Amino acid sequence: MAKKKEQPIILITNDDGITAPGIKNLIEAARGLGKIVVVAPDKAQSGMGHAITIGQPLRMDKVELFDDIEAWQTSGTPVDCVKLAVDKILHRKPDLCISGINHGANHSINVIYSGTMSAAMEASIESIPSIGFSLLDYRFDADFSAARHYAHEIIKTVLANNLDKHLLLNVNIPSVPLKKLKGIKICKQAYAKYKEEFTERIDPHGKKYYWLTGEFINFDKDKDTDVWALKHNFVSVVPVQFDLTNYNLKKILEKKNLFA
Amino acid sequence: MAKKKEQPIILITNDDGITAPGIKNLIEAARGLGKIVVVAPDKAQSGMGHAITIGQPLRMDKVELFDDIEAWQTSGTPVDCVKLAVDKILHRKPDLCISGINHGANHSINVIYSGTMSAAMEASIESIPSIGFSLLDYRFDADFSAARHYAHEIIKTVLANNLDKHLLLNVNIPSVPLKKLKGIKICKQAYAKYKEEFTERIDPHGKKYYWLTGEFINFDKDKDTDVWALKHNFVSVVPVQFDLTNYNLKKILEKKNLFA
Repeated sequence: MAKKKEQPIILITNDDGITAPGIKNLIEAARGLGKIVVVAPDKAQSGMGHAITIGQPLRMDKVELFDDIEAWQTSGTPVDCVKLAVDKILHRKPDLCISGINHGANHSINVIYSGTMSAAMEASIESIPSIGFSLLDYRFDADFSAARHYAHEIIKTVLANNLDKHLLLNVNIPSVPLKKLKGIKICKQAYAKYKEEFTERIDPHGKKYYWLTGEFINFDKDKDTDVWALKHNFVSVVPVQFDLTNYNLKKILEKKNLFA
Repeated sequence: MAKKKEQPIILITNDDGITAPGIKNLIEAARGLGKIVVVAPDKAQSGMGHAITIGQPLRMDKVELFDDIEAWQTSGTPVDCVKLAVDKILHRKPDLCISGINHGANHSINVIYSGTMSAAMEASIESIPSIGFSLLDYRFDADFSAARHYAHEIIKTVLANNLDKHLLLNVNIPSVPLKKLKGIKICKQAYAKYKEEFTERIDPHGKKYYWLTGEFINFDKDKDTDVWALKHNFVSVVPVQFDLTNYNLKKILEKKNLFA
């Protein structure tokens, strides 16, 4: 007798907070592909990087936000949400963790600052295949229809193929109508970053304060980067790893024997 | 006529806050090797990962804490400190950025959560060679003498050798007396991580809250890892990179052509 095939469990989180339209669109993208459980921050957490909450306890509450979908909000970061979901809500590892859809790009160096990607990376470290999705539009009322379409295709493909227990994909979607998109491109992370400047202001009490601002610059001329793909209306998919060892430099340092 | 050799500028930051003993010990380790400028958080920022401050303005104040050394405290994260230092204090890139000495280990997967290493990584992205230092002792009154000795040696070696503009080293030092240390070992990041559990408690109002706790487990049996080196009383040096692309998986995904 054939074993009954169980539905995969899909954990959904984000870093814009549980009320952001992006997470609602990700739920729609995943609907029908498994049993969905949402565990997301109760407020926006953008730019939190891989922050975890050590010095404070966390709160967690079940919420009725997405009709028939089980959903929890927590006072923690996106990484905390993944940890809480596995230990306190699911009591097992989900089959897939998806994060987003982020309001705004997470290509190139942004993967490092991104709460969306950190949640996905946390899952990957825990041997849960995971994907972070980001739309290149910061607005609350952004049009997620094309992003939703591609997110659905990518989630379906990942669930159907047993690729890697540490699978971690950074998916960015250009903010253009679906028919203008040219498909999916597997990419490397571009060496592109912000040239930061701080805007100096004076508060009503005469004391200086600083706002971080910055201009985005692409230093990478290669054509297999995420920045190139997005500029040419492809959905970019960068496979990401959490082993940060620079093996080339390791070899060089071993050979030079400088620290002996 | 020979050009007068200028002193290198060494930027020092940390994530335990400017009043932590660890940063004072790092200043002592770097003393005499260049012009030191300290820009560090005004409070502890452990576990902040690569967080940056976007939604709030930052404060920055000059402080008299380290005798003759120029020092600033900021309300930002370790990453914010590096950005502020380059843009608003030094008005140029320093020749080296050093971060720490962290109170507690940052080996293996901790590199991802660590504010100490995120500050160093931010510098590396900006083409500033950088090193993060961590002592395997959480206590405020830890003995930093061996760590100071090795930090001095490593800083001197890095300044004397033009290794790589993106040089980024994750240095961990066992918490044992200097004479017990066996030297420096170039390592890879171990696949070792915390098995998390949340301790559930009830607040005085009858509502649940959760504390993150965890047991550290090393899954990596290789002998060239930082965890192995530290266990055997070596100072571990892991060269780190900020390109997170998983090139092996990129090749596999391109070959499988699943997303076409």
